[in-house]
Amino acid sequence: MSNIAEAATASHADHSDPLLEALGRIVGAAHVVAGIDAPEALTDYRRRYVGRARAVVRPASTAEVAEVVRELAAWGIPVVPQGGHTSLVGGATPDDSGEAVVISLKRLDRVRAVDLDNDTITVEAGLALRKVQDAARDAGRLFPLSLGSEDSSTIGGNLATNAGGVQVLRYGNTRDLTLGLEVVTPEGEIWNGLRGLRKDNSGYDLRDLYIGSEGTLGIITAATLRLFPQPVAQRTAFIKLATIENVLALLNRAREGFGAALTAFELITGPAYALVEHQLPDERLPFAAEPKAERSYVLLEVSDGESEQHAQEALERVVGSAIENGIAIDAVIADSLAQSQALWRLRQVNLAQSQLRDGRVIPHDISVPISQIPQLLRTTEAALQQRFPGVRVFAHGHVGDGNLHYHVARPLAQDESHVAEHENDIRALVHRQVTALGGSISAEHGVGRSKRDDLPHYKTPLELALMQRIKHALDPHGIMNPGKLLQG
Amino acid sequence: MSNIAEAATASHADHSDPLLEALGRIVGAAHVVAGIDAPEALTDYRRRYVGRARAVVRPASTAEVAEVVRELAAWGIPVVPQGGHTSLVGGATPDDSGEAVVISLKRLDRVRAVDLDNDTITVEAGLALRKVQDAARDAGRLFPLSLGSEDSSTIGGNLATNAGGVQVLRYGNTRDLTLGLEVVTPEGEIWNGLRGLRKDNSGYDLRDLYIGSEGTLGIITAATLRLFPQPVAQRTAFIKLATIENVLALLNRAREGFGAALTAFELITGPAYALVEHQLPDERLPFAAEPKAERSYVLLEVSDGESEQHAQEALERVVGSAIENGIAIDAVIADSLAQSQALWRLRQVNLAQSQLRDGRVIPHDISVPISQIPQLLRTTEAALQQRFPGVRVFAHGHVGDGNLHYHVARPLAQDESHVAEHENDIRALVHRQVTALGGSISAEHGVGRSKRDDLPHYKTPLELALMQRIKHALDPHGIMNPGKLLQG
Repeated sequence: MSNIAEAATASHADHSDPLLEALGRIVGAAHVVAGIDAPEALTDYRRRYVGRARAVVRPASTAEVAEVVRELAAWGIPVVPQGGHTSLVGGATPDDSGEAVVISLKRLDRVRAVDLDNDTITVEAGLALRKVQDAARDAGRLFPLSLGSEDSSTIGGNLATNAGGVQVLRYGNTRDLTLGLEVVTPEGEIWNGLRGLRKDNSGYDLRDLYIGSEGTLGIITAATLRLFPQPVAQRTAFIKLATIENVLALLNRAREGFGAALTAFELITGPAYALVEHQLPDERLPFAAEPKAERSYVLLEVSDGESEQHAQEALERVVGSAIENGIAIDAVIADSLAQSQALWRLRQVNLAQSQLRDGRVIPHDISVPISQIPQLLRTTEAALQQRFPGVRVFAHGHVGDGNLHYHVARPLAQDESHVAEHENDIRALVHRQVTALGGSISAEHGVGRSKRDDLPHYKTPLELALMQRIKHALDPHGIMNPGKLLQG
Repeated sequence: MSNIAEAATASHADHSDPLLEALGRIVGAAHVVAGIDAPEALTDYRRRYVGRARAVVRPASTAEVAEVVRELAAWGIPVVPQGGHTSLVGGATPDDSGEAVVISLKRLDRVRAVDLDNDTITVEAGLALRKVQDAARDAGRLFPLSLGSEDSSTIGGNLATNAGGVQVLRYGNTRDLTLGLEVVTPEGEIWNGLRGLRKDNSGYDLRDLYIGSEGTLGIITAATLRLFPQPVAQRTAFIKLATIENVLALLNRAREGFGAALTAFELITGPAYALVEHQLPDERLPFAAEPKAERSYVLLEVSDGESEQHAQEALERVVGSAIENGIAIDAVIADSLAQSQALWRLRQVNLAQSQLRDGRVIPHDISVPISQIPQLLRTTEAALQQRFPGVRVFAHGHVGDGNLHYHVARPLAQDESHVAEHENDIRALVHRQVTALGGSISAEHGVGRSKRDDLPHYKTPLELALMQRIKHALDPHGIMNPGKLLQG
């Protein structure tokens, strides 16, 4: 791993590089730059990795992607596919060997087709997620994938990482929203699997193999995605509960009472909530924070196909009964779009802001069976306190999917170098607890570079061997996104 | 392919066969029989294939399955996994070489766990689908997979073929209902992927690779499946429409009006409906059949989380507005469970009965994008009439998923040998039309043996090559269910 300063002082690539000239003949010279001239392609989103690349090339079409890959395969040059470059695990950043060529998909940004009778949209990989949502809305439909980086992440990256987000509870992960794919293989062939079919049992499921493979098996260049009716009404509630067990009881009632209308069920644990109040005193919070660490808060959203009134009544009925039955302590139901946006802002913006002000955290993107969440929170906290007394845990996340973002911060008496020093041990401790409860150490962000070396500790040798066999079968020369997901 | 008479006269296997003895030491001698003594394991459900097998072995646990497979792998003996043996494409029947051993999963029939907070059930592969449904209902939940053979097909077979059925529109195929799998590999190792996780992006999607692989990559021995709230009310309507275009217009209105409450949308085309009236005059049909072949009929079901009254009102609103707007001609809404069951009986039982009485049909299990269904029906009918004048087409199916069961029957002036003689040409004609419209020649039944040799005509060489590479990577000695799905 090099750092930014080193990269900046490295010598410029030779502009008469015959590889760059060959690539320029395919995509036009203006769309090939030496790696050194494209620093934004070399530093990951969290600024933990600074890589080098021989070139960054920007093809404009699937045919050009295929031709570029054929050229690189002929030279034996590794390929790093890149979309919005928003990976949280360094999945789209080249390593520091300087050998790889980054293929940016951002010029593949067309909406190829909208089929209203089939409820599908076909888009190219480089289109920003927000623009996919917009195109669906312009057609009177909903494309429900929604996540923090939706303005800058591309649908190709969402597919490569099987992105999750806040509506998985109702609509599933990116995988569940995808009917067909177009993929350029490591040999530069084009697999046209852009089928708009809801049922197709005619062979192995190549689609789902490429989805979530993080660019290590091929380059996704386009996808046919499912659309849904737009909800007629959305209502948001914010609920305070005494314990995490009560959160699960509320989730059960909400699943039963709302069915498919339940589109978000997000947990904020007491300490994470209290930190927002402490660090961002100007934000108006629905409730005053309380000293009891066991307090939990839930942001709940229903999306109704009938009417505002129907949504409001359902929400009042379910939340009201939860309070009557002692499951919830108190609740606010947003009366206006502005109130609803403020509640979402707390979840999507303020949590991260408050932690950023507090200092460095060690993040974990974990999942367990929903039933194991109370156990996970309790045993992990206890184990952390025993080993690293005073560390603070800020946890929140998509509890309806069993997915928590579990952030460990310094003891108040220490500075942030404390957790940085212990990062590896803290990660190992948290990941062991997760694994013991049947969970995953990467729920929605993927493995990329930052968890690659963790996998062998948490997967069985058999599972790793099966993955290696698939990698070797589909990328026999190992040129696709090397060093990501799997060890060499 | 041999026939039943030949198989019956074949000589009995040698009962001192050392292989059978070795298998008997693993599972108990009572659970190993020579193939000749287990004829039900050798003839497929549609009685088109009669195979032979060296033995049929019935392990009682995953560990026994693994040990049996290791033993067979050591001998280099092919393995045919078998559940309820209800494949419609010969997918679970051994070939006639007599070399293979059939592994019956039917003794693996336990419910291993129900996790209500996680909304999951973990079951073994040999459990009949009906019993999975029952176990879910006993726990106060819904397992929504539902299909004609649910009493006898096993969940392992449903998984191996990614079974579809009548509620795919709302809940998806078997794939979409599955969170985790346990699989015995062709080397006899056990992959424990029984994760109850809704989000897990920690490597390649092995789960979805095994699902739908028809026993050619390994043996699924258990699965963790998703559960849903039971609907509070279900309402069924039967609707008559002038044309297939109106069916799509009604589908759009139903998706918009019911959202996730729309749980079935089944098409019966005019000629198929008229045949029921003609062949089964004692059945009381909702409407008299009409001579216009363009007439279409839709069985529509809504599943409501609120109340009977809410379901009824929604159904009356949507169906009423479709009639007012000229989309539908007429409709009946079932007033009682008995009426609803009668409508479902028409769809699930009477259609098949009437065609059975009429004589042999050439069946096709096809899908296209929903928007292409009118085009598919028109152009295929025209092409068939030009080439085989007078043939009759009985089509019905899950139009909300783009999936039709398209059956071609003899001209009235001919006997059934007419279509039998032309079977290959009829299939090729229909499959070419489907492929030209971006469809699949196997929507939900799988490929098995009967469509194996069709695939090369309808998939690209690249897709077939990718599938072969995966097969070779995961089953390098080619012992898993040979001759199914892929050519040798």
